Amino acid sequence: MTEVATPPRFSGKVFIGVSVDGFIARPDGDLDWLIRADPGDTGYEAFMAGIDTLVMGRGTYEKALTFGYWPYEGRRTMVLSSRLSPDADPRITVHRDLEALLRALAEAGARRVYVDGGKVVQTFLRAGLVDELTVTTAPILLGSGMPLFGPLESDIELTHRATKVLGAGYVQSVYDVAHAG
Amino acid sequence: MTEVATPPRFSGKVFIGVSVDGFIARPDGDLDWLIRADPGDTGYEAFMAGIDTLVMGRGTYEKALTFGYWPYEGRRTMVLSSRLSPDADPRITVHRDLEALLRALAEAGARRVYVDGGKVVQTFLRAGLVDELTVTTAPILLGSGMPLFGPLESDIELTHRATKVLGAGYVQSVYDVAHAG
Repeated sequence: MTEVATPPRFSGKVFIGVSVDGFIARPDGDLDWLIRADPGDTGYEAFMAGIDTLVMGRGTYEKALTFGYWPYEGRRTMVLSSRLSPDADPRITVHRDLEALLRALAEAGARRVYVDGGKVVQTFLRAGLVDELTVTTAPILLGSGMPLFGPLESDIELTHRATKVLGAGYVQSVYDVAHAG
Repeated sequence: MTEVATPPRFSGKVFIGVSVDGFIARPDGDLDWLIRADPGDTGYEAFMAGIDTLVMGRGTYEKALTFGYWPYEGRRTMVLSSRLSPDADPRITVHRDLEALLRALAEAGARRVYVDGGKVVQTFLRAGLVDELTVTTAPILLGSGMPLFGPLESDIELTHRATKVLGAGYVQSVYDVAHAG
């Protein structure tokens, strides 16, 4: 009996801010409502210290370009996009579909992957590739915008790990995602 | 100078369970995912003790009929519905639109009103008639269902009052709703 070594899969982690009604950005991508108040230490630095690779969509990548500095300095950054040119930016690699992206993650030996942006989070959740969900809720209702979550083929059970009240009325909950397989 | 006494407005309170992705029921109204685990004391009894009137839509009323007992015994219960017959049920009064409902609330001298059910919560939020929001989040993603929140004309600012971790990984947050006027 021959055993084939399967490379251990990466752990997919989401760390994201939402409104109480579940939006991660206004319809035009604006984050004013999220960043206007100071929640204090959200644990983002500590979270990022445990990450070796970032995965995001074109929208999140293009939002990062507006920050005036590159927020993912020194981290492997992969962008899932059917439209971005492969040599658009030397700081990122571009992948055309989920299959290509997963291949690149395996080849790079990615272990702890920050899954960011609404569409990519939904894609990874549906594919069972998210293990941990840290959701920081800002005390506001927006009424419209880009939703964090989307349709699923079936329920996804979560295990609540911790909840913290941060400053300015922000509430942060961490969930582990149960996997069928 | 003559002063005209304006009757003090009622306080609208929401107390509701949601999935992490913001649904209050499955597409068919099923609450199995919400009631399958025991969060312990959710504070519902204490909340209800401070309520003099319930307001709900037809969907929530008809859901209550399936419980096998009348959950609003001894409370004034108003149902906002364009279809229910006015003499459908002696335990409730039926009101055709928000204006008629608000008139009935004023005439009844309602002070602390439990606003229940997705559509009625959204209607009351949009009309600036909700003062307090208690949201209990069950650790599950449903992917689809009846959403708690809906479109708004503008942001609604919330003030975080308290968050508690209940049993079975349920998290309960209480917000006060800021009003422009």
